[in-house]
Amino acid sequence: MPFKLTILGCGAATPTSIQNPTAQVLQMAERFFLIDCGEGTQVALRKNKVKFNKIDNIFISHLHGDHYFGLIGLLSSFHLLARKKPLTVHCPQNLRKLIEFQLRVSGTKLNYPLVFNEVKITEPLRIYEDKMVEVYSIPLNHSIATQGFYFVEKKKPRTLNGRVCNDYNIPVYLRNKIKEGADFTLENGEIIPNSELTLPSPPSHSYAFFSDTAYSDQYASFIKGVDLLYHESTFLNTESELAQKTKHSTAKDAAKMAKNASAKKLLLGHYSVRYENRSEFSKEAKTVFENVQLSSDGLVINVN
Amino acid sequence: MPFKLTILGCGAATPTSIQNPTAQVLQMAERFFLIDCGEGTQVALRKNKVKFNKIDNIFISHLHGDHYFGLIGLLSSFHLLARKKPLTVHCPQNLRKLIEFQLRVSGTKLNYPLVFNEVKITEPLRIYEDKMVEVYSIPLNHSIATQGFYFVEKKKPRTLNGRVCNDYNIPVYLRNKIKEGADFTLENGEIIPNSELTLPSPPSHSYAFFSDTAYSDQYASFIKGVDLLYHESTFLNTESELAQKTKHSTAKDAAKMAKNASAKKLLLGHYSVRYENRSEFSKEAKTVFENVQLSSDGLVINVN
Repeated sequence: MPFKLTILGCGAATPTSIQNPTAQVLQMAERFFLIDCGEGTQVALRKNKVKFNKIDNIFISHLHGDHYFGLIGLLSSFHLLARKKPLTVHCPQNLRKLIEFQLRVSGTKLNYPLVFNEVKITEPLRIYEDKMVEVYSIPLNHSIATQGFYFVEKKKPRTLNGRVCNDYNIPVYLRNKIKEGADFTLENGEIIPNSELTLPSPPSHSYAFFSDTAYSDQYASFIKGVDLLYHESTFLNTESELAQKTKHSTAKDAAKMAKNASAKKLLLGHYSVRYENRSEFSKEAKTVFENVQLSSDGLVINVN
Repeated sequence: MPFKLTILGCGAATPTSIQNPTAQVLQMAERFFLIDCGEGTQVALRKNKVKFNKIDNIFISHLHGDHYFGLIGLLSSFHLLARKKPLTVHCPQNLRKLIEFQLRVSGTKLNYPLVFNEVKITEPLRIYEDKMVEVYSIPLNHSIATQGFYFVEKKKPRTLNGRVCNDYNIPVYLRNKIKEGADFTLENGEIIPNSELTLPSPPSHSYAFFSDTAYSDQYASFIKGVDLLYHESTFLNTESELAQKTKHSTAKDAAKMAKNASAKKLLLGHYSVRYENRSEFSKEAKTVFENVQLSSDGLVINVN
């Protein structure tokens, strides 16, 4: 099953004709999670051929416009396109009130159930769970209440070792039990342990989204070993004072966080429009952490 | 001075990758009026090379999302781009409260004065005036409170007839008074009337924006002789029942309004995405009114 991230927008602050504000789609375990929803996200979804109807959960990091101004338009389009199934928005407080106000003034009664999971952002918290996936909210260090997200596949079951099961002539009707962890007893009473009859679980993958935030490794241990960390890098180190003042990060800050979290890969984004040459971000981050990639609108990254 | 209209978006309901929701810029008497502001308007302004800083007045027809969801993003970008001069939004009631709520949750205190002229939409009303231009709000017939707009150049002054002034040897220092309407007295006491010394006023032009609305010619006489009428045509006549039910117009309705208002030209737009062939709109309207043009994103029309 693909575990992949599509960047719909990687810019900071104002959308331009070549760069959308923050929005991403994470496809994992056949779910499609929309992360942030800057202005123009619904058009970016169309351009990137993500079907609206696949999205059942939207995660909003914070209420700066470049991370959510596209939400009301997307919710309205879901309605106009006759969506029926529920949608959940995991978000900071106040967004529910705001969206409900917007729906009210337009006289709109949505066709579909819209559920708000308003998160109290004070400590790491599991905000979503199903049988294959968990999502955690992680407090970030920004000028208003902001949460990062940590998406984790649950431990997958061990798989049958077909060759060994055949060697022991294990009947088919017993194999499901073995998949679930049972041992097998031969006619002579000898017990074959499950570990011999099965192969190790396929690895579980994870993704962390940290934007917007000043440098803080307070929760680095929480995402220890994450496969892919998206960390904002609004500035370069030459603007480190401005970064601290506005509670944003430099490329170097992002790399420090990736290092402290023992991330396998770091993805940079949320670049200020002041920089023309993006490769500087990568160069700066690589002085601290090797495996760095630059996000760009339309980029698709396979995590597994 | 150019009197021209730029179509930033001509679609109805949901933005697509090829069509923006409603937004227009009217340039008249060196002012730039933004009319409606669907999602993506700020990017459309950039693409059409309209300088943000030229816009001092925004007119919002009604609070359906395809006419205003881009406003908060544009206002935020004005702020981020360090605008200092005032901006006035002429709009239906509730928009002020909504925008102020959005600014509050993001912790934004705008750099520039933002003035709301919330219009009580019950009868035609002058909502803007300066020394060269008047703008009127006109109630439309839609499912929520909706106003059309009527932009009129004030009567322009007569211009000097340089040749005649020279023939009478009128000194330069007197000519401003003649421009303002004075007669001229020759040395022999003969009075030369102003009408002989000046040329007729250049014509004043006008533009009317009617969207969204079901067919209603209640205020046709108010915009009598308008140079250009933009009238929504969400549907074709084959969907006239749906048009009535949703309080929208067909291309034929728009043409009837243009005829009743003795408009010089009719511009159609706000097309439902259900129609692939736009020329049908033009064909249908021309059965009632001859001078019809189809709007499309990026179209520029010179009114004068």
